[in-house]
Amino acid sequence: MPQYTAPLTDMQFLLHDWLKLEEHYANIGLQDFDKELVNEILSQGAKFAEQAIAPLNREGDEQSCKLDNGKVTTPDGFASAYHEYIANGWNAMLGDPEYDGQDLPHSMAVPVQEMLCSANVSWRLISMLTESAVLAVTKHGSQALKDTYLRKLISGEWTGTMCLTEPQAGTDLSLLSTKAEPQEDGSYHITGNKIFISGGDQDWTDNILHLVLARLPDAPAGVKGISLFLVPKILVTESGELGAENSLSVGSLEKKMGIKACPTCVMNFDQATGFLVGAPHQGLACMFTMMNDARFQVGLQGLGIAESAFQGALAYARERLQSRAPQGVQNPDGKADPIIAHPDVRKMLLTQKSLTEGCRALSFLYAAQMDIEKNATDQKAKQDAANVLAFLTPISKGFMTDVGQEVSQLGVQVYGGHGFIREWGMEQLIRDSRITQLYEGTNGIQAADLVGRKLSRDNGDMLAATHSLFANLVNAISDASSQKLAHSILNDWHQLSLQLKQQSAVNVAGAAYDYMNYSAYSLLGMLWLSMADSATLSTNPSVQSGKKATCDFYIKRILPRKELYKVNLLEDANDIVEVTDNVFDYQ
Amino acid sequence: MPQYTAPLTDMQFLLHDWLKLEEHYANIGLQDFDKELVNEILSQGAKFAEQAIAPLNREGDEQSCKLDNGKVTTPDGFASAYHEYIANGWNAMLGDPEYDGQDLPHSMAVPVQEMLCSANVSWRLISMLTESAVLAVTKHGSQALKDTYLRKLISGEWTGTMCLTEPQAGTDLSLLSTKAEPQEDGSYHITGNKIFISGGDQDWTDNILHLVLARLPDAPAGVKGISLFLVPKILVTESGELGAENSLSVGSLEKKMGIKACPTCVMNFDQATGFLVGAPHQGLACMFTMMNDARFQVGLQGLGIAESAFQGALAYARERLQSRAPQGVQNPDGKADPIIAHPDVRKMLLTQKSLTEGCRALSFLYAAQMDIEKNATDQKAKQDAANVLAFLTPISKGFMTDVGQEVSQLGVQVYGGHGFIREWGMEQLIRDSRITQLYEGTNGIQAADLVGRKLSRDNGDMLAATHSLFANLVNAISDASSQKLAHSILNDWHQLSLQLKQQSAVNVAGAAYDYMNYSAYSLLGMLWLSMADSATLSTNPSVQSGKKATCDFYIKRILPRKELYKVNLLEDANDIVEVTDNVFDYQ
Repeated sequence: MPQYTAPLTDMQFLLHDWLKLEEHYANIGLQDFDKELVNEILSQGAKFAEQAIAPLNREGDEQSCKLDNGKVTTPDGFASAYHEYIANGWNAMLGDPEYDGQDLPHSMAVPVQEMLCSANVSWRLISMLTESAVLAVTKHGSQALKDTYLRKLISGEWTGTMCLTEPQAGTDLSLLSTKAEPQEDGSYHITGNKIFISGGDQDWTDNILHLVLARLPDAPAGVKGISLFLVPKILVTESGELGAENSLSVGSLEKKMGIKACPTCVMNFDQATGFLVGAPHQGLACMFTMMNDARFQVGLQGLGIAESAFQGALAYARERLQSRAPQGVQNPDGKADPIIAHPDVRKMLLTQKSLTEGCRALSFLYAAQMDIEKNATDQKAKQDAANVLAFLTPISKGFMTDVGQEVSQLGVQVYGGHGFIREWGMEQLIRDSRITQLYEGTNGIQAADLVGRKLSRDNGDMLAATHSLFANLVNAISDASSQKLAHSILNDWHQLSLQLKQQSAVNVAGAAYDYMNYSAYSLLGMLWLSMADSATLSTNPSVQSGKKATCDFYIKRILPRKELYKVNLLEDANDIVEVTDNVFDYQ
Repeated sequence: MPQYTAPLTDMQFLLHDWLKLEEHYANIGLQDFDKELVNEILSQGAKFAEQAIAPLNREGDEQSCKLDNGKVTTPDGFASAYHEYIANGWNAMLGDPEYDGQDLPHSMAVPVQEMLCSANVSWRLISMLTESAVLAVTKHGSQALKDTYLRKLISGEWTGTMCLTEPQAGTDLSLLSTKAEPQEDGSYHITGNKIFISGGDQDWTDNILHLVLARLPDAPAGVKGISLFLVPKILVTESGELGAENSLSVGSLEKKMGIKACPTCVMNFDQATGFLVGAPHQGLACMFTMMNDARFQVGLQGLGIAESAFQGALAYARERLQSRAPQGVQNPDGKADPIIAHPDVRKMLLTQKSLTEGCRALSFLYAAQMDIEKNATDQKAKQDAANVLAFLTPISKGFMTDVGQEVSQLGVQVYGGHGFIREWGMEQLIRDSRITQLYEGTNGIQAADLVGRKLSRDNGDMLAATHSLFANLVNAISDASSQKLAHSILNDWHQLSLQLKQQSAVNVAGAAYDYMNYSAYSLLGMLWLSMADSATLSTNPSVQSGKKATCDFYIKRILPRKELYKVNLLEDANDIVEVTDNVFDYQ
């Protein structure tokens, strides 16, 4: 496959022509950020992604990580690329200026984050989790904690991890048993085992800050008895210097299907010194600050990998000559036509393209809402944006990672047998994207979150805010028939959402995954109609015709998927739970 | 995941209660084969699959194959398991009795073949290709060729390979350039490079027979100028002893996503001595004898892997405790309920089960048709069976391997993060099944074969025979409402098939994949209604209630997928081929 090239034309179309970023910035008091700055950041981000980390991706998969004497070694070049990344300030894009962060709008950062995922998702994971840790410490940490740790976490001089999962407690964190014992100096001793810790150790930085969920001695049972602790790998002295090693270690590295260049560690905490983040027993709420950010970022991993798979398939389909196309000879000078001319291959490419660009539109819309939530002075606008983000987070994570898998699968299929061979790089995308459907909450858990929390709680405000955002988007479509179609998609989705809210707990749980998909395909339908409408004004003829044709394809060929999910989500789920277990008994 | 257990109860239900094998055998003059013999073969096959090869599967993936000094080494235990396999006569199940074959009915062999695929698909591949080579030599080889090679190929003392693909010629074999030069002694010198040769070398047997496509000097261009040659690794003397090494070598081993324990070789033929199989320039027809067999067998790989993924997911879902089910506490003595109680997980399991058992019914029906095609004395019955097999081959290969992938993906999803960890064995199923969608013709090529050849040629006899077979199945359903539903599925499918035949070449090519899926979901719908109907007479209450509930699930939740494919296949495909290439230009 060809090396990754950042899709700058599409990104700039979305940001400037579609989202109208300068107007958006002006509306929320960010008038200092203009188009030129956006483009400059995108182009520098592209340069870093394309030149510094994309070339390490294939070899990183082959080398994977090693654990010797308790220390992790990452593949060649990974550490120095990270040093270049933090030296150029990329890690600090979103951080608090009080701690040397750049406080850039999310709409500038998200395109760059997507590029990092496309170029090398294994490499990206550690900086991604560090950004999430920054959020948790910024929002919930005490002043002392912030003063000690935040500057180095924002710069990336130290990295962060999320330590949630234990062998018996994955989805169900109420079962976690790691203990925190208060010490006289106000710190805690943390004891327990955590699994699946991405970046639990690495050879990039001289300290790592673990954010660990644990139980205090007096903790109530269940999720209401969980607290969050910051546990440094190396203890920090009062003067801010690195001191003694903390009492924690890497038990082992997991051998995984993919993201092999990212060290996934079993972590043992043995009376390790930790510091409370937020209030006692409020750990889950604090962790959700990290986790919601991480969930959207994992969605971006799905999108990023999808873009790489599409680029790989497109290049190969243009070069590979096999058989003649049914519409007639396309390449009279050759013995066969390029496979891009074959309808079946072309359908695969258009499926990839329509899903990938649709997810990019969703991500950038999400980013703009993050800008509003962070910067708007109008409290209603701020709250609406928060509600939209709450609603869209599980969809972004769940749907975009499923798209990452589907588009990667299509990428391999376009390559035929070569897709299965490691050196071509396409099969790695399937393996790397597979984890995105599992971590930060499986996609089934995202769907459960969507129907269980987001659809119903707070009087349905999250649904209402999302509906209102999309209604505005639809109302702005200039073409009458496109607008009419978009309206019908919007109304069907809204009606069905309200209908589902009324269902029993069993039916809601049974419909969750179908509803997540139904919603996502509906939202992408509106996004495509809106994008194609904006593209008519583009000065780039490829964008104009490309968006139009891809929108048509999406509407005709992909959008009908929502009807399948609709049929399923309207089914009574009691038959599923009521079938006796002996249904599964014969073999 | 638990080690594989052959699904004997389901297999015996299908063979005896559903297909009524003893009646079937009596109808085609095979009355010597009775229920007891069938069950004995199934139980011995199960023993071999479970005890000899399943335990090698995980470690084989880790060890993979090695190439040293031109010789391949397979993982520990693979060779001795193969020696046990051939010593027990498994390789000879289907062979011609004249050459010490057992000439068993396919309906006895197919269940065992499925088990081999479930247990260890990497191991299975070489014996599978050997069986295909047996068919080609039996049908097309000269008497001399058969006398020299067939006995050892049938016994498995020597193995066979299929050497078709070259770097520039995969799907499009008209582009192949390997040359065959006639020699004075009637043999040929074969020169060229072949890629993706499964079992191109191994350390199991002291000879390997390569079946190689090449061009004679006077060959017409294109596929009408291809001939088939048998090229032994070691030349055989007139007295049948092993003689000199032939002039061929393994260039390299491919590094692959999966089936790592199977050596996939680049083969170099450098004036290697070969012998013509069949008539000059008729090589493709000869190769199709092998390839059609291999395609159905690859479909069985999809089914076999699906069964393993289902077994793995089911066992884990019963053990893993996380969260409480929405229908109420299911496991009051534990802190959480087994995840099988959660509707979303249960849907995944029922999806796996309904697809896997549906594909098993399709495979066993196919096997019974192979029995008829081979043994019937009634020429009309024989020809009808051949037509059914021709129609069902691309569907079996294309659909069942897609099912293998889907069911493996669900298996990983049920395991959550653990599914991504190699030691659990679930992610290997995704990797191993991925090749089945690519080799022996990508699934897109299967779909093209279905609509291009099978639907239209010979006055539509292949469609008609398949329609007639399923009409008989539907008419035999005793429950009136089930029969009515099955009839409507049958009629919709038949009408749509006839409608598609009338379409333009571009529309047919554009609809191919959708039609393959539409057909498969329709056929499985009828198979499920038929199975559930037969199950009402089962003496096993788990089979009775299990088939009923799984059929209901399939009809309500899975069958609606066909409507999605229907929408797509009725779309005009000209918009896909007519979009100018600049649709793909911006990035």
